[in-house]
Amino acid sequence: MNEVVIIGGGFAGLRAARALAGRAVEVTLVDRSNHHLFQPLLYQVATAALSPADIAYPIRAALRSQDNARVLLGEVTAVDLEQRRLTLLDGAQLRYDFLVVAVGMKNDYFGREERWATHALGLKTLDEALEIRRRVLLAFEAAEREPDADKRRRLLSFIVIGGGPTGVEVAGALSELAANILAEDFRRLRAAKPHVLLVERGERLLSGGFDPRLSARARTQLEELGVEVRTSTEVLDIDERGVRVSSGLLEAANVFWTAGVKGRSLAQRLGVPLDRGGRVIVRPDCSLEGHPEVFVIGDIAHLVPAGSERPLPGLAPVAIQQGGFVARQIVRRLAGEPPEAFRYVDKGIMATVGRSRAVAQTGRLRLSGLIAWLAWLVVHIAYLIGFRNRSSVLFNWTWSYLTFKRGARLITGERSWARLAEYGVASPPLEAPTESSGAAPPGSLG
Amino acid sequence: MNEVVIIGGGFAGLRAARALAGRAVEVTLVDRSNHHLFQPLLYQVATAALSPADIAYPIRAALRSQDNARVLLGEVTAVDLEQRRLTLLDGAQLRYDFLVVAVGMKNDYFGREERWATHALGLKTLDEALEIRRRVLLAFEAAEREPDADKRRRLLSFIVIGGGPTGVEVAGALSELAANILAEDFRRLRAAKPHVLLVERGERLLSGGFDPRLSARARTQLEELGVEVRTSTEVLDIDERGVRVSSGLLEAANVFWTAGVKGRSLAQRLGVPLDRGGRVIVRPDCSLEGHPEVFVIGDIAHLVPAGSERPLPGLAPVAIQQGGFVARQIVRRLAGEPPEAFRYVDKGIMATVGRSRAVAQTGRLRLSGLIAWLAWLVVHIAYLIGFRNRSSVLFNWTWSYLTFKRGARLITGERSWARLAEYGVASPPLEAPTESSGAAPPGSLG
Repeated sequence: MNEVVIIGGGFAGLRAARALAGRAVEVTLVDRSNHHLFQPLLYQVATAALSPADIAYPIRAALRSQDNARVLLGEVTAVDLEQRRLTLLDGAQLRYDFLVVAVGMKNDYFGREERWATHALGLKTLDEALEIRRRVLLAFEAAEREPDADKRRRLLSFIVIGGGPTGVEVAGALSELAANILAEDFRRLRAAKPHVLLVERGERLLSGGFDPRLSARARTQLEELGVEVRTSTEVLDIDERGVRVSSGLLEAANVFWTAGVKGRSLAQRLGVPLDRGGRVIVRPDCSLEGHPEVFVIGDIAHLVPAGSERPLPGLAPVAIQQGGFVARQIVRRLAGEPPEAFRYVDKGIMATVGRSRAVAQTGRLRLSGLIAWLAWLVVHIAYLIGFRNRSSVLFNWTWSYLTFKRGARLITGERSWARLAEYGVASPPLEAPTESSGAAPPGSLG
Repeated sequence: MNEVVIIGGGFAGLRAARALAGRAVEVTLVDRSNHHLFQPLLYQVATAALSPADIAYPIRAALRSQDNARVLLGEVTAVDLEQRRLTLLDGAQLRYDFLVVAVGMKNDYFGREERWATHALGLKTLDEALEIRRRVLLAFEAAEREPDADKRRRLLSFIVIGGGPTGVEVAGALSELAANILAEDFRRLRAAKPHVLLVERGERLLSGGFDPRLSARARTQLEELGVEVRTSTEVLDIDERGVRVSSGLLEAANVFWTAGVKGRSLAQRLGVPLDRGGRVIVRPDCSLEGHPEVFVIGDIAHLVPAGSERPLPGLAPVAIQQGGFVARQIVRRLAGEPPEAFRYVDKGIMATVGRSRAVAQTGRLRLSGLIAWLAWLVVHIAYLIGFRNRSSVLFNWTWSYLTFKRGARLITGERSWARLAEYGVASPPLEAPTESSGAAPPGSLG
């Protein structure tokens, strides 16, 4: 029977696997992690609103009832297009008749990885989300301990680089998290004001496909949440002090990166033409030039639809539709039918800013505020895999909405408390807190 | 105003802090982690039934509404009993008028840490629980990949050392997890039989305070779940191959340690008499000999009640009652009243084995099976802090009970997929899975 190997269990890969259920092929899905990640809600894990298990679903469970599918945990290190053979990290090899590459993107620091990546964490994986959560919560703990007002201000300064949907969502969520946590739990910080700054190189937020009016609405909504938005601002450098832009140094202890992504390195190892973003340039049927048996779909694919100049955007709906599309193409190929051209059915785009704040557009319709936010909730709940995940997310959202609390405010990781030192908190001998109850003078832990 | 410093936000420390609400003292609670951990359910995180956030609660949130309490994230490195002063890891210092030490216990490998700890993971912290979850799930992934039947058997062998409540709970939960996951999600392993072995040095399980009849019931219930129980079996050595006992080597890729705990090192640094387990020997009012202003409570305290030879057991109810007790002693001390002697009100003990299986005893009552299990559920839900945690745990339990699934089956951690190599999975060039569909021959990924 024909072997279909799918690399990547994201939206595109998982959909392709499921769409091949009951077909006369053997499907093998290879992924480095054992779970499908619901990327659109990753920022809520980073901001302590949801737990990892709420937005992740075991790939094996997703394909449990599909008899012609099997799942492999592993990293593909090499693809031999001629021999139609993959090599995994541990040396194991895998032959295929059809290959579907859906490995997605990783953070791109425009060639400054080694220097910027350590200071400006990206948000593409669960581990990155947990590290962001850890850093944010540790920054509050450090600020509570910090006697020096300037240093305290720096600890409570958050810079989000990149004004796309993820940047907007992270900035809004950070602002709400800070406002709620500070007000409630950190005695000395109640007076202090956290500062969330969103830096975007372009002239407006959400420039990727959103109506300029909605970009403006998103900006207004962010500013209502206390987020400072700076557009047309290029990042020149990032270090432990903060972010350098043309106007000078923006001091912040917490810098997060949502400004750029590039294709994962496996794309390069295919040895086929890539675009500047490292995406694989594919034919209208998502296959490789000269290799009709190899399909590349999802964010990693560079596909320019007929009658358009711009390639399709890296969105979950595109990935999901392409997954179903290539499954159909494989079936057609086996039936000796000619390939079709992929047509993206654009159901619209949306981005959430915060509580009761979001923007959405579909067809000619433009929504913002509560109605857009409700639409966003419904769509995201609907697309989550699994009853447990849906229920858990719905419960956590309802609870957070009613209580203004965040349910997953955990600092985890070996000896994470020792990392307070990284925040350079001054540690003078302290007065007894009695002398510092109420408004605490510098130098006390009051 | 008088300063009360509490070290440790566990059952004892948190209760002491809350019991001092509204009293004329300033309370400072110092903990290395930012959350209170509900230890009794930690094994459910290790076995993928619950998420960390379900059993952890931010200490700041727990003391939010208590005006005379503050929370510090930090590690206490030194205690100066004469100067009544603490030093934190970062050098900060803290004075006190009353000190409450409630730092709890850590894993004890009977002096073999360096060699045993790496192979036999303990279960005292969230990070250890997540590491156990990671290892168990990776072992299944490795077994699915392993062509050699003997090696596969080793990968699916789990040894739990220690027949106390934790050991019984982990062994039972592992057996259920293995049975459910294997049956559902791992094609090649459906035939394979996982093996869970519980090793106990003593003559019976649950020897600590449980009625021998309940020890026997727990053993029967474990065996019903397919767990092999070996009592009167001393562990001689532990290495990557497995566990060596007098009868020979018990091969297993997964070994977990619940056999011993000892006082955290801070207890030694107090420079006061300790028992063999590193617990601080305290007076009937939980205070230190010669230091009536210093109280030691919870698992780390060695207190022999009047009219008894045996010290109080390391149980949550003891810790909680001692927390309330020392708070009252501090108030009495300030009022010039004489100290009281702590009396433990024993409401009973219970341990769960698995689905509808548990043992419990209170007064003369002896329960086992479904009724004991239901009692266990009620008690543990009731003692969880926070509406969200209670609801989430209740939901996850109900869902798992109805579906036989586990909701938190995530392998997380940087490059965790690469750790498959640690499991020494053979990686021959593979036949095309076609040749290996159905019953997979050795050497295939089928």
